[in-house]
Amino acid sequence: MKFRIGQIAAWLGGTVEGDEMVEVHTLAKIEEGTPGAITFLANPKYTPFIYQTKASAVIVQEDFKPSETISAALIRVADPYSAFTQLLEMADQAREASLQGIDPRAHVAPTAEIGENVYIGPFVFVGAGVKIGAGAKIHPFVFLGEQCQIGAETTIHAHATIYHYCEIGQKCIIHAGAVIGSDGFGFAPQEDGTLKKIPQTGNVVLADEVEVGANATLDRATMGSTQIQQGVKIDNLVQIAHNVTLGSHSAIAAQTGIAGSTRMGAHCMVGGQVGIVGHLDIADRTQIDAQSGVNKSIKQEGQAFRGSPIQPFRQQLKSEVLFRKLEEMSKRIESLERALAQKES
Amino acid sequence: MKFRIGQIAAWLGGTVEGDEMVEVHTLAKIEEGTPGAITFLANPKYTPFIYQTKASAVIVQEDFKPSETISAALIRVADPYSAFTQLLEMADQAREASLQGIDPRAHVAPTAEIGENVYIGPFVFVGAGVKIGAGAKIHPFVFLGEQCQIGAETTIHAHATIYHYCEIGQKCIIHAGAVIGSDGFGFAPQEDGTLKKIPQTGNVVLADEVEVGANATLDRATMGSTQIQQGVKIDNLVQIAHNVTLGSHSAIAAQTGIAGSTRMGAHCMVGGQVGIVGHLDIADRTQIDAQSGVNKSIKQEGQAFRGSPIQPFRQQLKSEVLFRKLEEMSKRIESLERALAQKES
Amino acid sequence: MKFRIGQIAAWLGGTVEGDEMVEVHTLAKIEEGTPGAITFLANPKYTPFIYQTKASAVIVQEDFKPSETISAALIRVADPYSAFTQLLEMADQAREASLQGIDPRAHVAPTAEIGENVYIGPFVFVGAGVKIGAGAKIHPFVFLGEQCQIGAETTIHAHATIYHYCEIGQKCIIHAGAVIGSDGFGFAPQEDGTLKKIPQTGNVVLADEVEVGANATLDRATMGSTQIQQGVKIDNLVQIAHNVTLGSHSAIAAQTGIAGSTRMGAHCMVGGQVGIVGHLDIADRTQIDAQSGVNKSIKQEGQAFRGSPIQPFRQQLKSEVLFRKLEEMSKRIESLERALAQKES
Repeated sequence: MKFRIGQIAAWLGGTVEGDEMVEVHTLAKIEEGTPGAITFLANPKYTPFIYQTKASAVIVQEDFKPSETISAALIRVADPYSAFTQLLEMADQAREASLQGIDPRAHVAPTAEIGENVYIGPFVFVGAGVKIGAGAKIHPFVFLGEQCQIGAETTIHAHATIYHYCEIGQKCIIHAGAVIGSDGFGFAPQEDGTLKKIPQTGNVVLADEVEVGANATLDRATMGSTQIQQGVKIDNLVQIAHNVTLGSHSAIAAQTGIAGSTRMGAHCMVGGQVGIVGHLDIADRTQIDAQSGVNKSIKQEGQAFRGSPIQPFRQQLKSEVLFRKLEEMSKRIESLERALAQKES
Repeated sequence: MKFRIGQIAAWLGGTVEGDEMVEVHTLAKIEEGTPGAITFLANPKYTPFIYQTKASAVIVQEDFKPSETISAALIRVADPYSAFTQLLEMADQAREASLQGIDPRAHVAPTAEIGENVYIGPFVFVGAGVKIGAGAKIHPFVFLGEQCQIGAETTIHAHATIYHYCEIGQKCIIHAGAVIGSDGFGFAPQEDGTLKKIPQTGNVVLADEVEVGANATLDRATMGSTQIQQGVKIDNLVQIAHNVTLGSHSAIAAQTGIAGSTRMGAHCMVGGQVGIVGHLDIADRTQIDAQSGVNKSIKQEGQAFRGSPIQPFRQQLKSEVLFRKLEEMSKRIESLERALAQKES
Repeated sequence: MKFRIGQIAAWLGGTVEGDEMVEVHTLAKIEEGTPGAITFLANPKYTPFIYQTKASAVIVQEDFKPSETISAALIRVADPYSAFTQLLEMADQAREASLQGIDPRAHVAPTAEIGENVYIGPFVFVGAGVKIGAGAKIHPFVFLGEQCQIGAETTIHAHATIYHYCEIGQKCIIHAGAVIGSDGFGFAPQEDGTLKKIPQTGNVVLADEVEVGANATLDRATMGSTQIQQGVKIDNLVQIAHNVTLGSHSAIAAQTGIAGSTRMGAHCMVGGQVGIVGHLDIADRTQIDAQSGVNKSIKQEGQAFRGSPIQPFRQQLKSEVLFRKLEEMSKRIESLERALAQKES
């Protein structure tokens, strides 16, 4: 799509300096601008680029005073960075909005119920009894197992797998390759040393406004539901085991793993590569630093932890400092021993 | 499917109290029961729910004595929990059993050999020379590369990728998004600092009754085979590098990585997020705690380890306790130094 | 395909001992040889197998002197291991070369530009405006979002997802299930404790000869590009966050995660399960050991680090040794305290 910069200035509440009829069709960083691109200048250290840029238009501060000639048209606004971000969002929304209709190459079970304005791309599999809410976007290669429910305005990206009976709320975003509802890792050791599978017959329930990262895995409950409450954000390659509950508006960074039946409170922040063992209770607003290992329940709300196993944040930092000084400590003990031995002799 | 509770009682070897003709079509937890659902009461702390439940039937202990009226029909059995689990399994098996036939939208190479009663869903890719054993279930979007072999009664879930020449035994379960047979990570550093790919020309061989978790990755051998022996259970997001051997009936929890050419014995238990370096030998029945780093071979069978790098389990726990007391230790050294200095002066 | 061993000997510059007309159609290890297979003997400890092998031909050292009769034909060469590796590579290349043409079951947008000799398998999705360079191989179930660019002779394996606007150079290899261009994990905490998504409007750019492992995830930039420079090798299940730059010819082992906006130099070697926090600068030729946690920028080139948080390699090893001796250190402090107390009394 092409837009005149006069139009764009109007959207952004800015004023044009130059030809309002100039058309742009893409967005770029100022150091990478090409003809037909619109860019922006927010950080003063990038100012030299505005005199060289080949972009057709640049969004600048209201009071920007060029010290040389500029070939691009200017759009003057109060906050160039947020104005540009606004354009980027509009471009993204336009792309998403253009996805419409049910591709005839999708498999849609006759018993599935599809809401209004749903996009179902080519090579989507929609199983028996699936319900998809209005305005949902189901990208190519998504698998929706039997009896799944997908809320209105939810987007599921390519190659995500939603196993049978799982429920996803409204306005969720599921990224490519995420797996929701795979079997929990449950085996009963037998007398002969073999491992007998414990059937995993529950499901996974995501509330509204949950985001799940690429290739993350959320296992179905042994019985009942693995529960992801409203507004939880899960990063790429995270593992959520069976029967876990994640409280509302918590965020879990990449490659973290949470073992079976642990219940995490609301508004928690968990760094990357954290491991949390099973059957714990984690209080609301807990913060866990990256690479930590959580091996006990956390009762008090709003505390920060670090280390494997975790300690309170500041105490762990002290231990880490002294860990790096262990050689010095060891030498000081030796000196003391020598000094004392000398005294004895 | 609907069943009369008289039928269900007969399967479970129980007796009905109430109307045997009542029909149920779904399974639920007692606190979530709805009309048409069958539920159970095993844990006495859930007893209050039985007087409120809207479920149509409840499985209870043989000698259960209600203290109030119950609207649901009862099925009395010796062990309500295991009876309910049995029903859950039956429901799951019924769902799986309903998957039959080869969908015309699958790609099946003319040279592929497909056994009896195999399910091949829509959008499956079956390459040249692939062999699939009787009763296997190949879900939508599975990729079976050239010359793969899939054993009888094996289930491969949506989006799993089995690269060319890999072999999967009987009664295996491969979860969604798992990748079996990707290239091992092998590069020869060149004099100019670039990295030259070492061709990975072997395969991956899974014996019978192996389970592979969602989005786990098992690399093909440089030459020969990466070998997963009978009954091994691999959790989600696990990485198995080229030429690794995993001994029979070992279990590897989520997000663990095992580097190239390591040989693990039988009946080992490995926690989540463990890293094991390459070219090691790990004895049978070794237990490794979560987040450990294994950097040396383990000769003695049946030992437990923890830490990164690992120590024997109890020794590591002692080190961890003292790590948390490093500040105190440091202060005690200072006190000793001051005391001694005072003596000297 | 079948080849006479006379032909094979000619390719390898070797000489045949036995019937040159014998045909082989597969490659095997000497202990696993079957009729129709060609194998090799390089390591003397495998010599006993050559007298038992059922393989049709064995590649041996020029000066190999059998001590018993051998049923297989022999091909004598200067270096049997590298000769066999050469055959393995030829077999692999023959298999890849046989992939040709655009399968009619692929979805190819009319606005896509497809180069010469491109392979596009069944069930591939090629979005609007995508450009694919000559000789590229796009395997089944690959998703190429709107406006993606794929360089010449690049191979993309099954189930890889390339989101819109991402660019992949020439001669790259993307393994199964890898996700390139998913949204970066960016949320602005709101006053009410909810997390507001920050639009991720940039892309991911891979230079030439990059390899990306199975199920690895590379997030698109918030604005601008996540950049993977020439010849970088990324292993399975690695997480690269938004706006990261990886310098040329660096190698990142499995399950490592690199947080947002970190810039890594050229020729770095990063072990498995490493975590690197965001907004750091890592100098060229840095080496990071497995399971390390990098929490600060590294200015000096060519240094090795280990530990979480990292220390210089040797210093960390010393700390680790003393960590294992903490109980002994603690006891020595107690002895000193007792000795001193005795003196005082």
